[in-house]
Amino acid sequence: MSISSYYTPTKVLFGKDAELKCGQMVREAGGRKVFIHFGGGSVVRSGLLERVKKSLEEAGLESFVCGGAQPNPRLSLVRKGIEAYRREGCDFILAVGGGSAIDSAKAISYGVPYEGDVWDFYTAKAVPSKVCPLGVILTLSATGSEMSNSSVITNDEVVPNDKFGCNSDLSRPLFAIMNPSLTASVSAYQTASGSTDIMMHTLERFFHSGESFEYTDLNAVTLLKTVWKHTLKALEDPQDYEARANIMWAGSVSHNGFTAVGNPTGGDWSCHRMEHELSALYDVAHGAGLSAIWGSWARYVASVDYSRFAWLGKEMFGISEKEPRVAAEKTIEGFENIFRSFNMPVGLHELGLDLNERDLEALAAKTSWNGQRTLGNFKVLEQADMLEIFRMANRN
Amino acid sequence: MSISSYYTPTKVLFGKDAELKCGQMVREAGGRKVFIHFGGGSVVRSGLLERVKKSLEEAGLESFVCGGAQPNPRLSLVRKGIEAYRREGCDFILAVGGGSAIDSAKAISYGVPYEGDVWDFYTAKAVPSKVCPLGVILTLSATGSEMSNSSVITNDEVVPNDKFGCNSDLSRPLFAIMNPSLTASVSAYQTASGSTDIMMHTLERFFHSGESFEYTDLNAVTLLKTVWKHTLKALEDPQDYEARANIMWAGSVSHNGFTAVGNPTGGDWSCHRMEHELSALYDVAHGAGLSAIWGSWARYVASVDYSRFAWLGKEMFGISEKEPRVAAEKTIEGFENIFRSFNMPVGLHELGLDLNERDLEALAAKTSWNGQRTLGNFKVLEQADMLEIFRMANRN
Repeated sequence: MSISSYYTPTKVLFGKDAELKCGQMVREAGGRKVFIHFGGGSVVRSGLLERVKKSLEEAGLESFVCGGAQPNPRLSLVRKGIEAYRREGCDFILAVGGGSAIDSAKAISYGVPYEGDVWDFYTAKAVPSKVCPLGVILTLSATGSEMSNSSVITNDEVVPNDKFGCNSDLSRPLFAIMNPSLTASVSAYQTASGSTDIMMHTLERFFHSGESFEYTDLNAVTLLKTVWKHTLKALEDPQDYEARANIMWAGSVSHNGFTAVGNPTGGDWSCHRMEHELSALYDVAHGAGLSAIWGSWARYVASVDYSRFAWLGKEMFGISEKEPRVAAEKTIEGFENIFRSFNMPVGLHELGLDLNERDLEALAAKTSWNGQRTLGNFKVLEQADMLEIFRMANRN
Repeated sequence: MSISSYYTPTKVLFGKDAELKCGQMVREAGGRKVFIHFGGGSVVRSGLLERVKKSLEEAGLESFVCGGAQPNPRLSLVRKGIEAYRREGCDFILAVGGGSAIDSAKAISYGVPYEGDVWDFYTAKAVPSKVCPLGVILTLSATGSEMSNSSVITNDEVVPNDKFGCNSDLSRPLFAIMNPSLTASVSAYQTASGSTDIMMHTLERFFHSGESFEYTDLNAVTLLKTVWKHTLKALEDPQDYEARANIMWAGSVSHNGFTAVGNPTGGDWSCHRMEHELSALYDVAHGAGLSAIWGSWARYVASVDYSRFAWLGKEMFGISEKEPRVAAEKTIEGFENIFRSFNMPVGLHELGLDLNERDLEALAAKTSWNGQRTLGNFKVLEQADMLEIFRMANRN
């Protein structure tokens, strides 16, 4: 049997001022006392936190505020959140922010009803069977966590840090409120890094060892082109609502499973796994880490199926080159040029890292769990493959 | 505020032999005694019913079989279904079939927990607040009912018949099992009529008075092109799995709300309303009724926004004509040619109807509820507009 599944129960409200509906949404979901989880001060400075609190108040709901989520969200904060949620007697989590706030909210949502250590879910020692109800107000287009089943947490209590993900349909938010205007204040670097992450969610699912069908492939192209075009527009004019709207919705669709329908493997995901180790060790922005690796991964694996790269290059860039190997290389260059146009790195040096051979070996060892795991399925990568890809990224 | 919402909680299993998972899916959803609702004998003849019963049995579930759903599904059968479901003590409905089986299953699901007359929901005298749990095994790509919030029922207890829809998120199935192979035995006419309905679900949402954004518009084009291309392939080779897969998934995506994200109006829907009246009176296939009307509707309303028609024509057919009015006409002709290539009618005569002016007036009067309702929003249609469109379709 070769069956793919698709499940996106998250109710989306999309448009200007949609955040003013949050009180109503929480009330309809049965919440009474809301744990508002967010990241940095921009949610406060922009007045968004006040609008959210007012909407909750008008719906007759209490709230407790817990800020402090940061990029590559930390386990230590998750633990504090679990404690505070229990202590305050909350019954609903509202994440206000981007992937960091949402991912740590998901972790808190796993941890509150669990008697053991929440990190168990990220080391696969336990599987979530119950969560606290969770809703999202999105302020950064990037991780797609607002509709996805995944969260990624960095364990900052060990040295070197570990960065692991936990996937469970239980963590798909009950609702996601998406007002593109809320992303207008995001910096150029974060906008570009977020868009790179979005494109990578599609690329990771596009290259796989399983079956596919044409609509899913063509939609991948539409998503990639949409994010490319509108990111350039948003970088030029951060207030461009239509650009922000296209990026925001493309971000959700690129990671809610839609681009894997018909594809039972669910994608390759090697680059994400490699980047998680990179950012666990060096705390780089996730999207930037991905663009710094992808081209090297692609060149290393392309011979598995040059023609799939060639097809993508034809649809994306109009590459008409007949020789699949050459067309594949041109396709890879095409994507690297997109990343460059976003001012994103296409190698480890551009990421600001200066790694020597020993660093690269340590990275490959950590990524492969000292040879205990392989990555991917488009081409299955062993530790030696990972090392070679990291070396290539270090030379690129 | 201008907010669009998107909500598709239906869990999709997509691929070969996916129907063998139905027992497991029902059990996970908490069902114990399953009311299997289907249409004609093909579900029996193909052996599908036996496979379904076996899967339920293996999952330790009881079942009761209720066939007889037919195109333009009838209220009288819905009433019998409600009675049987209650009498047999069922607690789950499994619809096996196309839109007719699913739509009457939805009506049964509304009716069982309701003390009043189920038709109340279709005449807007009542709003559903509770339903029986419902799952679907899809055997015909067309109405999109497997993920949609709508069902349409024909009241065969009045003369002339009424055909009304009821929309409620409660009616979105808990799961939809989609094995493209199950649609391989569908006749050429039903395949073509189904594909026309799918394309119309996208066209109805593409033309509207509200906002839009680029990804949603480009995805509409991808869906329309996908259905066009793969319908021709399926008509040539009914066993073409990839063609059936593309059409099947495009059918769900075209009607689950995905193509209206960013568009708060949700679309125009005039053609669907007009076709419902046409098929209530003359019992034509829904898709065929739609293609018989669409071109006339489009020509009647195009002046509202020639450039939107022109954009679609450029993306679909490469129409480069600069004059928007001319480009719009070419676009409309392009779609009529697609319908012709499917052997679908583009006028009422080709539908096998021979209507005179009095018939057309009666049709327009019924469609407008004797002048009590308007249709659409791209251009709001009064009774006189509807009459003119029916006249044009009668001449086309």
